Amino acid sequence: MATIVFCSVNKTAQTSARRCLMPHMKRLSGAGESRLLSTCIHGNSVAFLPGTRWFSRGSSVRFMSRGTAGRSASGGTRRGALALSAAAAVTAAAAVAGFLANANHFQRAEMATKVSHAAEESEPDGDILERCRGFMSLPVTDVGVLEERKEEMRTRMEMLIMETQADFCNALQEVDGGTFKVDRWQRKEGGGGISCVMQDGKLFEKAGVNVSVVFGNLTEEAARQMKSRGKVLKGKDGKLPFCAMGVSSVIHPKNPHIPTVHFNYRYFEIEEEDGTKQWWFGGGTDLTPVYVNKEDAFHFHNTLKEACDKHHPQYYPDFKKWCDRYFYVQHRGETRGIGGIFFDDLDSPSQEEAFNFVKSCSRTVVPCYLPIVYKRLNDSFTDKEKDWQQVRRGRYVEFNLVYDRGVKFGLATPGSRIESILMSLPLTARWEYMHEPANGTLEAEMLEVLRNPKEWV
Amino acid sequence: MATIVFCSVNKTAQTSARRCLMPHMKRLSGAGESRLLSTCIHGNSVAFLPGTRWFSRGSSVRFMSRGTAGRSASGGTRRGALALSAAAAVTAAAAVAGFLANANHFQRAEMATKVSHAAEESEPDGDILERCRGFMSLPVTDVGVLEERKEEMRTRMEMLIMETQADFCNALQEVDGGTFKVDRWQRKEGGGGISCVMQDGKLFEKAGVNVSVVFGNLTEEAARQMKSRGKVLKGKDGKLPFCAMGVSSVIHPKNPHIPTVHFNYRYFEIEEEDGTKQWWFGGGTDLTPVYVNKEDAFHFHNTLKEACDKHHPQYYPDFKKWCDRYFYVQHRGETRGIGGIFFDDLDSPSQEEAFNFVKSCSRTVVPCYLPIVYKRLNDSFTDKEKDWQQVRRGRYVEFNLVYDRGVKFGLATPGSRIESILMSLPLTARWEYMHEPANGTLEAEMLEVLRNPKEWV
Repeated sequence: MATIVFCSVNKTAQTSARRCLMPHMKRLSGAGESRLLSTCIHGNSVAFLPGTRWFSRGSSVRFMSRGTAGRSASGGTRRGALALSAAAAVTAAAAVAGFLANANHFQRAEMATKVSHAAEESEPDGDILERCRGFMSLPVTDVGVLEERKEEMRTRMEMLIMETQADFCNALQEVDGGTFKVDRWQRKEGGGGISCVMQDGKLFEKAGVNVSVVFGNLTEEAARQMKSRGKVLKGKDGKLPFCAMGVSSVIHPKNPHIPTVHFNYRYFEIEEEDGTKQWWFGGGTDLTPVYVNKEDAFHFHNTLKEACDKHHPQYYPDFKKWCDRYFYVQHRGETRGIGGIFFDDLDSPSQEEAFNFVKSCSRTVVPCYLPIVYKRLNDSFTDKEKDWQQVRRGRYVEFNLVYDRGVKFGLATPGSRIESILMSLPLTARWEYMHEPANGTLEAEMLEVLRNPKEWV
Repeated sequence: MATIVFCSVNKTAQTSARRCLMPHMKRLSGAGESRLLSTCIHGNSVAFLPGTRWFSRGSSVRFMSRGTAGRSASGGTRRGALALSAAAAVTAAAAVAGFLANANHFQRAEMATKVSHAAEESEPDGDILERCRGFMSLPVTDVGVLEERKEEMRTRMEMLIMETQADFCNALQEVDGGTFKVDRWQRKEGGGGISCVMQDGKLFEKAGVNVSVVFGNLTEEAARQMKSRGKVLKGKDGKLPFCAMGVSSVIHPKNPHIPTVHFNYRYFEIEEEDGTKQWWFGGGTDLTPVYVNKEDAFHFHNTLKEACDKHHPQYYPDFKKWCDRYFYVQHRGETRGIGGIFFDDLDSPSQEEAFNFVKSCSRTVVPCYLPIVYKRLNDSFTDKEKDWQQVRRGRYVEFNLVYDRGVKFGLATPGSRIESILMSLPLTARWEYMHEPANGTLEAEMLEVLRNPKEWV
């Protein structure tokens, strides 16, 4: 990533920005009991709350696959469709239906008018334990501890990443029909994580959504890395207590017409000698299609842009460029996919506003991706298209193992949970010697876009 | 690889060492015209020698798949079998037949007695052009230039790596029935290479055998790396002219009972300010099976050991350990395979003796590997075994992309030919989340060996 100049000028209010996002249904009354969830909660989480019934929150993501939204482009009713009880949900579902009604292009204008303007980001009410009921597992940090320090950013961020994990997992389970395997794991040095993986599902070859919350003292190597990125850190007796947390996900579908998506949102805190804290956020969401589809690309980027625009007009253009630079497979001269947004070291204009931006981004994951999945899930494909997907998967592996900072850092860090780091790798991949698509093919069109990143919005 | 202590004491003559190697048949009278070769030579090489008929030398490797050696364990005659004309070949073939006669174990004692003691390494006679006729392509360096500086080490090494490539490719073509695609390529900065790849053959999923001969001035980064490895280099006006050449190969078979093999032999020369040359050799051969087979492992390691023992009694034990340390997938806590030998910076006891050792090693590739291929090629396998192979292929990719110095150096070097560097990756690979074989299975037995490297001889 090398030399990134990131302008952290003051936020300009963008409250009136027209939004094309699916609204987030935090205020919806709860849907029914989630049988899916109750079957996939393992071990510790259940033990913590004996006798507790795990209900899904009236989650933002559920609507994506229910009611009219649950119909495929060809009009068939999808399994597990349930009526939504709240009026807002119907509005949202109509927006999705508008999105899905025409398999050839998105009904952009129609969507925009149907979007609820009451969808500003807010944190759900209710006590911590109540909010945890919709999660894939109890949070990494003890619920009592979270309740005690409810106002602190590390608590608010941990709740956000748990919520993001649950929203995305639920949305994927609904559309796939499969169930995530939920693994809680602990890190000897402090903290732990919750890894949710669905493998060889109906639609998804491999889907991983991982939360981790780790703390301890920075290793010398990590402190050196921080300093090389311009951080001035004064440790106490050479020690720098830190806390890092994030949610990250990679979804590899089977159908080559459904793109791979990746996102990651994270928060970092370091305590200095005098007790002051340095903190910053990072993250991004990006798409890796196998074939170019301009409407999908527009929808994906535009959804991100509208989330960014609410916070600062430079966020989308700056973070879009950063994404193209970061996800670059140097030795191939190609980007990994068609990008999205990527940012790091975000520590302005205030902690509150930076958090609100991250909240907007993480709540944009489902509306960025799921409509594309629903639109494409019945697309047929050929062996040749599947082969090309497998070759692209190989490139994905190359990026992740050779360049990705998170993977490199994870593999080099003692005590890392390797399975969680490498769950981003596809179930299958292929390397063909001298694979070069013929001119004029759809495969060549994809390569052209990867070699010369485009503006999609 | 970190801290390797390599004792470069004087060579002890080991001329009487009992050898279990297949003898190298340099002295055999030529076999027939190679139709295979003539169909797979492309572009430049043919243009250099218009009207020349490309004959295979009476090559050491041909016997491996002809005559009695051409019979599979079940006794069936293999395609393209031709009688060998020389008595020595019959002896050798008998040794192979002895090796193959019992599918359950190697006839070690019998083999030892049948091995020709006249198989000491020598360089073939004849002018350069004559020797080139058996190669997969003309050498990288112009034949006229090679002829002029016939006695220089860089010429002798270039001829050796070309010979090694041809011997191995011919042996693989014979057993597979497929044909290598031969690509000559040039490096803008100086030199070039010859990449031979067979993809999706009858037996081999992907087989790559690459020669490269590059020269120019060391980049600053490369010079720094050299210095960090203890080389004291005095450049002229900051420039360090170098010449590097090598042959490298990775073979991924389809059948999970045939192991993957890798080898690489290389030579490096740097010219200092006062015109003196620093030089060294490096290389190794190692095996990556999917299932443990002690007889195969013994044969492979013992063949290497006997080649090493001819030169120094410490070579095999030292280079075996070095191999286990080098091919270590740190984040998995596993070696890549069951090892073999690996060495670097070999610049003693003399250039002549170091070269002779490298010659022994490179001529040992075919007898290390081909008998195992012949023994296993009719083994049946299940889907489960194929899946396990694919998971192991994933680990192979992890090693090559995350740790392998050659790959890392290649990917970071401008002007590298990426397709030649990454031809070592398998055609297909698989990453299953939390894949852990059950206790007592053959898969668990393999893992145990990878987690605790064994002595095989």
